[in-house]
Amino acid sequence: MSVARGGRLPNAVDQAMHELNTSVRIDCELWEEDIQGSIAHARGLSAAGVLNVSEVEQIVGGLEQIAAEIREGRFVWDEAKEDVHMNIEARLTDIVGPVGGKLHTGRSRNDQVATDLRLWSRKKTHETLAVLAELGLVLVERAENEIDTLMPAYTHLQRAQPSRLSHHLMAWQELIWRDRGRLWDALGRLNESPLGAGAVAGTGFPIDRESVARELGFERAMRNSVDATGSRDFLMELGCALAILGVHLSRIGEEIVIWSSQEFGFIRLSDAFATSSSMMPQKKNPDVAELVRGKCARLIGCANALLVLEKSLCFGYGRDLQEDKRPLFDAFESALLSLHALTGAIRSAAFDRARLRKALDGGHLCATDVADLLVRHGMPFREAHHVVGGLVREAETRGVDLAELPAEALAAAQPALATPEARSAFDPEAAVERRSVVGGPARVRVLEAIADARARWQSVR
Amino acid sequence: MSVARGGRLPNAVDQAMHELNTSVRIDCELWEEDIQGSIAHARGLSAAGVLNVSEVEQIVGGLEQIAAEIREGRFVWDEAKEDVHMNIEARLTDIVGPVGGKLHTGRSRNDQVATDLRLWSRKKTHETLAVLAELGLVLVERAENEIDTLMPAYTHLQRAQPSRLSHHLMAWQELIWRDRGRLWDALGRLNESPLGAGAVAGTGFPIDRESVARELGFERAMRNSVDATGSRDFLMELGCALAILGVHLSRIGEEIVIWSSQEFGFIRLSDAFATSSSMMPQKKNPDVAELVRGKCARLIGCANALLVLEKSLCFGYGRDLQEDKRPLFDAFESALLSLHALTGAIRSAAFDRARLRKALDGGHLCATDVADLLVRHGMPFREAHHVVGGLVREAETRGVDLAELPAEALAAAQPALATPEARSAFDPEAAVERRSVVGGPARVRVLEAIADARARWQSVR
Amino acid sequence: MSVARGGRLPNAVDQAMHELNTSVRIDCELWEEDIQGSIAHARGLSAAGVLNVSEVEQIVGGLEQIAAEIREGRFVWDEAKEDVHMNIEARLTDIVGPVGGKLHTGRSRNDQVATDLRLWSRKKTHETLAVLAELGLVLVERAENEIDTLMPAYTHLQRAQPSRLSHHLMAWQELIWRDRGRLWDALGRLNESPLGAGAVAGTGFPIDRESVARELGFERAMRNSVDATGSRDFLMELGCALAILGVHLSRIGEEIVIWSSQEFGFIRLSDAFATSSSMMPQKKNPDVAELVRGKCARLIGCANALLVLEKSLCFGYGRDLQEDKRPLFDAFESALLSLHALTGAIRSAAFDRARLRKALDGGHLCATDVADLLVRHGMPFREAHHVVGGLVREAETRGVDLAELPAEALAAAQPALATPEARSAFDPEAAVERRSVVGGPARVRVLEAIADARARWQSVR
Amino acid sequence: MSVARGGRLPNAVDQAMHELNTSVRIDCELWEEDIQGSIAHARGLSAAGVLNVSEVEQIVGGLEQIAAEIREGRFVWDEAKEDVHMNIEARLTDIVGPVGGKLHTGRSRNDQVATDLRLWSRKKTHETLAVLAELGLVLVERAENEIDTLMPAYTHLQRAQPSRLSHHLMAWQELIWRDRGRLWDALGRLNESPLGAGAVAGTGFPIDRESVARELGFERAMRNSVDATGSRDFLMELGCALAILGVHLSRIGEEIVIWSSQEFGFIRLSDAFATSSSMMPQKKNPDVAELVRGKCARLIGCANALLVLEKSLCFGYGRDLQEDKRPLFDAFESALLSLHALTGAIRSAAFDRARLRKALDGGHLCATDVADLLVRHGMPFREAHHVVGGLVREAETRGVDLAELPAEALAAAQPALATPEARSAFDPEAAVERRSVVGGPARVRVLEAIADARARWQSVR
Repeated sequence: MSVARGGRLPNAVDQAMHELNTSVRIDCELWEEDIQGSIAHARGLSAAGVLNVSEVEQIVGGLEQIAAEIREGRFVWDEAKEDVHMNIEARLTDIVGPVGGKLHTGRSRNDQVATDLRLWSRKKTHETLAVLAELGLVLVERAENEIDTLMPAYTHLQRAQPSRLSHHLMAWQELIWRDRGRLWDALGRLNESPLGAGAVAGTGFPIDRESVARELGFERAMRNSVDATGSRDFLMELGCALAILGVHLSRIGEEIVIWSSQEFGFIRLSDAFATSSSMMPQKKNPDVAELVRGKCARLIGCANALLVLEKSLCFGYGRDLQEDKRPLFDAFESALLSLHALTGAIRSAAFDRARLRKALDGGHLCATDVADLLVRHGMPFREAHHVVGGLVREAETRGVDLAELPAEALAAAQPALATPEARSAFDPEAAVERRSVVGGPARVRVLEAIADARARWQSVR
Repeated sequence: MSVARGGRLPNAVDQAMHELNTSVRIDCELWEEDIQGSIAHARGLSAAGVLNVSEVEQIVGGLEQIAAEIREGRFVWDEAKEDVHMNIEARLTDIVGPVGGKLHTGRSRNDQVATDLRLWSRKKTHETLAVLAELGLVLVERAENEIDTLMPAYTHLQRAQPSRLSHHLMAWQELIWRDRGRLWDALGRLNESPLGAGAVAGTGFPIDRESVARELGFERAMRNSVDATGSRDFLMELGCALAILGVHLSRIGEEIVIWSSQEFGFIRLSDAFATSSSMMPQKKNPDVAELVRGKCARLIGCANALLVLEKSLCFGYGRDLQEDKRPLFDAFESALLSLHALTGAIRSAAFDRARLRKALDGGHLCATDVADLLVRHGMPFREAHHVVGGLVREAETRGVDLAELPAEALAAAQPALATPEARSAFDPEAAVERRSVVGGPARVRVLEAIADARARWQSVR
Repeated sequence: MSVARGGRLPNAVDQAMHELNTSVRIDCELWEEDIQGSIAHARGLSAAGVLNVSEVEQIVGGLEQIAAEIREGRFVWDEAKEDVHMNIEARLTDIVGPVGGKLHTGRSRNDQVATDLRLWSRKKTHETLAVLAELGLVLVERAENEIDTLMPAYTHLQRAQPSRLSHHLMAWQELIWRDRGRLWDALGRLNESPLGAGAVAGTGFPIDRESVARELGFERAMRNSVDATGSRDFLMELGCALAILGVHLSRIGEEIVIWSSQEFGFIRLSDAFATSSSMMPQKKNPDVAELVRGKCARLIGCANALLVLEKSLCFGYGRDLQEDKRPLFDAFESALLSLHALTGAIRSAAFDRARLRKALDGGHLCATDVADLLVRHGMPFREAHHVVGGLVREAETRGVDLAELPAEALAAAQPALATPEARSAFDPEAAVERRSVVGGPARVRVLEAIADARARWQSVR
Repeated sequence: MSVARGGRLPNAVDQAMHELNTSVRIDCELWEEDIQGSIAHARGLSAAGVLNVSEVEQIVGGLEQIAAEIREGRFVWDEAKEDVHMNIEARLTDIVGPVGGKLHTGRSRNDQVATDLRLWSRKKTHETLAVLAELGLVLVERAENEIDTLMPAYTHLQRAQPSRLSHHLMAWQELIWRDRGRLWDALGRLNESPLGAGAVAGTGFPIDRESVARELGFERAMRNSVDATGSRDFLMELGCALAILGVHLSRIGEEIVIWSSQEFGFIRLSDAFATSSSMMPQKKNPDVAELVRGKCARLIGCANALLVLEKSLCFGYGRDLQEDKRPLFDAFESALLSLHALTGAIRSAAFDRARLRKALDGGHLCATDVADLLVRHGMPFREAHHVVGGLVREAETRGVDLAELPAEALAAAQPALATPEARSAFDPEAAVERRSVVGGPARVRVLEAIADARARWQSVR
């Protein structure tokens, strides 16, 4: 620290302060972006006439050598050098001599770290988008496989109406399609360059910030140096988008846990995604789904930490912002692991079609259709709802499903219910096909939805 | 409740259960959207041949009458009718008779409330965008007024480098510009119609969902009925976007509180935005800024509640979702109040230009420029930083600012510092002008930024 | 506001600022405590010689009259008077004339509101403790009723080992016993008097703060005036304790939802605690359990808001603290409603003993006991676990439960398993009784636990 | 994993699933408690007759050898063995042979990890309490040093009334005293033994759970095996208590940041607790205080994650709970670092007594005392408040402090103000001394508070 931070040396650094100060164990994660940003900055200094051709070549060469050293595991990280930036700069000076000390001209750690974080976040968001697309396509594929698997749709975890499994899987897919949209929008907003904003008020050297921004693949230089160095809403936005994604994955996880119970028995995870017990030899637990739910808690905690961290911070940079890295890194790690694991688990899971189909037989699932039939005969829906409610109670008294009520009981309630044409109201397959509105579970509609979703996911792959 | 919910009546409803169940005190907020959605649904039923022309006219007429009653304060809300939907439907049946009972054909409270929430959220987001634009333009205007007010830029709440007030105000403006983008993107994603999705699995009546969607100003019918009724990521996304906005407003609030202290004395709120004390007759407190910080805590809490609410929920609709309304309504209320109040406070505040300017005189603010000068003479920046660090210590020993060091002290450190050309490195105004990179505080750059921002905000007004 | 706040009147109050400022719609909740605190303060002023006997009698009489007016619904709350304190003080002056203006001597709204909040929190915490005890005793009673109902214990929502329903219900009870402890500890910590701390630095009038504290039932006067007016950790602590309680209630709610599914069918809520559907005439939904889960999200959001609100606040009082009331009130309301409703639901629910018992028959629940049997024959547990794992696979291949494997299959694996003495290892009832360690599900242990818990709850009732 | 988990081997473990599953990088933190718990369990098995003397000696000897290996850095952690428990058990079997496989008799990873977590939490809470006491005593000491340093008390960050620095420091101390109480109460509640609860339903071996509990220093065996293995409210409670502590430390941090600004200039951190800038050679930043604020955001995020994690979890153990470790470990690390660093920073900071004293001269700080004087002359406080408000406006018009108003101006407002006896109302030192109620800033009261606090902290050291 002493060389880098120059004149104002502390005479003693307490151990705790040292640990608080030292971030290299965490922020070494940013090494690649730090080098990438430094190379662009060096070229910017050269274009501005601050470095000559030989200097910029030495610096870029040195940085590329460091990148190789890190990539190959030969780089020695030194906690005494506090953070990733000083570790790399110190090594650069080892390699190229005093010219290394020119790299930080017109730059501050404040615009440097903001640049690194944006580059890293961009990379990780792209990575997440790719896995999301994989999950999307796996869901589309499984939905296609299960197009003929009927099952109840549930509300309140109660059997509600006849539906099909592929319709349910396509619902999962819709959620993550919007997750994709949120991450994509965040990406567009964060892809701006802080470099050249200096500590807070820009730099006096005539660096062409737009050109440096383009070299780094950014869409533009950020418009205000105070904002560029002191804002982290891109991290809050990513944290929130990942938390929402986590909520969605945990909803899928919850259904997998419940569907894996002996009582439901709808799904069976492959052995690679379930685990056994240290005490109970018979157990096969849906751990992947539980871990995904658990990761979701972390994702919500990370989003919360990022929001709280920035609340009421004065401009420009404050050291509080050092603490943005752990929740950010943690959030991407949790999201990526969950996505990968869930994708594998869903791809390899087996659905028990017979049990899914059998679940249609209890629960009076035809009740809405029977009421609708009465509506078609002119009865207001509210009255029809009331009539069918009475029939359900009668069926329960008799210990049968509504569909099994004898004709005379139906006729007593309403003659129209006992006609031959009325039978289809009691038939779950007919009921599903009748739900042929856009977005409904009728076979043709789900096939359309599958085709549409496949095309969308492939277009963004 | 008994009439509406038909056959399966509870024989006793415990008081607490009643209070848990009854949401009308909260969800009456949705009345306008509920009527709007019901009118569109009635027309959809008519187009599908379920209602005839006379029926749809009676229903629409009845709903419009109810709207008038509510608008004029003549409507009697009845807690026994549980929620906004049943209050309106029951009144409709009062007005139009049994035909009112036909309105709920092919619809469930699940798609109905999802529709209401999307319509309401769309309305409130537009309202928020409008106030954001007002704040944006107020900031642009104040920045223009203060174009010649110099002040230090701070990092770590320590004076850092010379800058100008308008540059700082434009940083605030950049933050809320991105807040605008987030809300706008959320708006695009939520503007889809759940209507026709029924309870969870669509409806068997041939409603043209796309046409109903268009009537309500939605871009499309939602693609999956399970998703349409059981997802609330649009609320999580809005909650998060408003929380991020709240963090930004609380950062502005924090600076106003600090700048209002006697010690800083940079800003003076107008009396309308400050309050006095019940005990201390002399007090004038920057309450508006503190309340905005406080509201930010609520906004973070609301976003958190919305995320937690949905975590691990099974599909489709679960009653947990009743609890999404209070945090949603609370979030928009908190955000809108904060925006309005802060806009008024900033518009009417007085800046103390003399004190802002005077703050440039302490804190050795020219240190970076002096180091940069040495760099221009060929010294590596790291070495220059070290040299200037020594000069700062010397200045402190002498009890003067770095800019006041005598020429011989400068010359002793580095002859180049004592030349006449070097003087501009010690001059704050020259220092600000030298920071003329894009995004820097030089006068011309800030004027460009003001023009650019004004055009952007006006284009979205 | 104008009269009360005296000299420094704002010349115009913007509408939004008015709404931000005006808290009476929220804080009128504190009216009883405000009057209680004012009476004690008036007596304190009298003891200090600041008010004479007649004055204190007039003031106390006036305050008691106001209390009666509010209690009987005759009090007119006026938003122009901003908050509960000024509404009451203004009415007092109406009633008693200028002597009313003496009440606020030696007091500030800062110590006044801190006192009100502590009194209110104390009252509500006592109320919560009482309902908790009711729930505890209901659980104890239901556990006693179900002492002979066997069921599987689950881990990962997979059937794990034989157990009994009353053991499970007693687990629920243990959680809320600790919730009780947390609230009790919070109560002890908050029961201190801020009164006399003034705005921030105490008062110059010789009020005997300890005596006033005792009059209000506080254990002591707070030791530091800055702390007394500017700290709200008692609210954070209550918010957190209620959030943890909410997590526990939502865990119970989750089990009720799952147990109410047709697939599990373990519990049937009474009609008063379930609701039907607006579209589906057959539905009976476990709404109470879902609403409790939903309230838990709010409780977590409230705790979060309270923590975030205070983060980084300077001392003493800041107006941010106005925002502590809504999350506090909301948290107690949510917790109390959830507790009441869940208590009623559990008291009136029916357990399906046959289905619970039948669930023991699948899932190879004897596996641990079989492995333990091998251990008793000297095999290391890890090896026994392995052997039984093989037997489970064999049972699955044969399509039977482990308990149904023929003797020869057992003998082949391990002769000891096929002996008559070994049979009890395959018997679920014997398995439960064998688990007779302290805290285990053996009948005698659970009866002991029931007796112990009943005594504990009764002692704190 | 294959050996340990016995028969049901996955045939392929996906990389992501492996990473999700593998917790040893995190939970190796628990090694000491895992060995401690295993030794107690082995002795329990021996007392129950399950292990003979030779076996228990081998096992305990092996475990102690492992402890030595880990302590000396010679232990090789193997990710393939998944977690800390299997790493240690596998090494035990290496050392002692098959008898090692007997250790897990009557135990599950579920009660094992619950025990480890309680032991670890107990250790870390004691460690935190010790550092808290150190901070408490440092504050007491600094308060004693600064007993004669006058300064304004602030509300809304506005100068409010005359006070003294030691009174302010003692307020900080009061907050952390209650933090101590919360941690202490949590400690009492968590100090119970889950061991013997098995996977969820206890164990069939006759282990004396109470005796094992005592060996581990627990107060009792937990009363219910389902609760013992599936509850983590002790972690939620610790997470919340640490978050509240974090809020308090961040409030202190906020004041240090503001007091370190050139504008306030009240405090100067020693060089060991401040840092410089990579760009600006003159900077000395109060990083320690900012990092503490930043850590507080993490602490709130951790508490939130722990609450969310458990929401709606079914009993017994679910794999979600694996995710409780990172937020727990992170919370204690953040709290301990913050406490250590802040303690060092406060101990070594210099207060600028002259600037603190000088801050009394602006802000009309005598206003309350002047109003009180009028009250002593019989004027109702509300009227006195109004009169003094007018005098403050007059002082501002004249550009002087209220204390500097000429006698004639005072006399014009109220003759009593212009008498010689009235002068003390305008004198800040007299004002502080007049505030001699319990908990007030008068010298004698603060000295009493210091003595009381010192005795309390020493008694718990």
